[in-house]
Amino acid sequence: MDRLKKQFDFILEIDKEKQIVRQNYLADGSRKENDSEHAWHMAIMALLLHKYSTDAVDVGRVIAMLLIHDLVEIDAGDTYAYDEEGQSGKQAKEEAAAKRIFGILPEDQAEDFMDLWQEFENGITANARFANALDSLQPMMLNGAAGGKSWVEHGVKLSQILKRNDVTAQAAPELWEFCFKEFVKPNLEAGKIVNE
Amino acid sequence: MDRLKKQFDFILEIDKEKQIVRQNYLADGSRKENDSEHAWHMAIMALLLHKYSTDAVDVGRVIAMLLIHDLVEIDAGDTYAYDEEGQSGKQAKEEAAAKRIFGILPEDQAEDFMDLWQEFENGITANARFANALDSLQPMMLNGAAGGKSWVEHGVKLSQILKRNDVTAQAAPELWEFCFKEFVKPNLEAGKIVNE
Repeated sequence: MDRLKKQFDFILEIDKEKQIVRQNYLADGSRKENDSEHAWHMAIMALLLHKYSTDAVDVGRVIAMLLIHDLVEIDAGDTYAYDEEGQSGKQAKEEAAAKRIFGILPEDQAEDFMDLWQEFENGITANARFANALDSLQPMMLNGAAGGKSWVEHGVKLSQILKRNDVTAQAAPELWEFCFKEFVKPNLEAGKIVNE
Repeated sequence: MDRLKKQFDFILEIDKEKQIVRQNYLADGSRKENDSEHAWHMAIMALLLHKYSTDAVDVGRVIAMLLIHDLVEIDAGDTYAYDEEGQSGKQAKEEAAAKRIFGILPEDQAEDFMDLWQEFENGITANARFANALDSLQPMMLNGAAGGKSWVEHGVKLSQILKRNDVTAQAAPELWEFCFKEFVKPNLEAGKIVNE
């Protein structure tokens, strides 16, 4: 019963991820997305797209990583991908958050989730690289679909998008090529992305 | 490229699930939950709780089922679990929705998702029974945590909760026992659930 109590304490704690608002909008531009919606969307993308990974991946582990990778934002908040100032200090805040939040779980599961999260953050294994690629592609796709709304609001430059998607171009080149053509190029041509 | 086009058409179409509002509230009662948040939450619950299943399950398949099982509601809408009138006609509407929505995918993946969805709906395999158990437990947990707000709004009876959780009690008896004690009993005693 003590094990179940810890598990349900954690399951209720993570309900808060549904209130962590991101900078990108839904595809129809009606409102901003939250972290849990983002994670759900990417988990289905992983199911459908994992064969495009340059290196073979364990799709179950990729999905687990995607489902939990933003839980640290319950304490640390969302840092916009193109907020360079916000990136400093982010790591320490997120590590403390991981310790507290995963620490609610029974020890074995706390360790499993901590390992998953650190693997995602390190971005070295094939699984983590593909998960990171989706984590860049998914908001890029929504930004593109929403007519570049979030890119305009933040004055985002093409060079920033390209830098963030370095991993995408390497880990899943076909996905990158397709998404660049479908979602970035039209918005670049329409002046929604700064051509620098 | 045609395959990728179909995959991304589907991935953008399912963004609409984020706007399908359910009847239960988030744990803090601040607003109602949507289908994508519900699916994300249950996928993590499956990772943590699958060992409590009476019969051994393939957790990857359970998670895939949970991630996609409500996509039909993009066309068919959410039917409240305790709306008995709404249940009639629901099946035909959801089948048409499954055909249209999964049909956006390349044929092999459309078949895979249709199979997953039908397995969940039939509720016969161990994987489907455990997924169905979580689908009942998760909103029950949130309703309990939110002080029975949704149960009060709908005048829900104990007998309705017990009937809906038949599968839970069989597929995962320890989870059912724990959740009944933690989330149902206190709300029953506080008069938030009709004792009938």
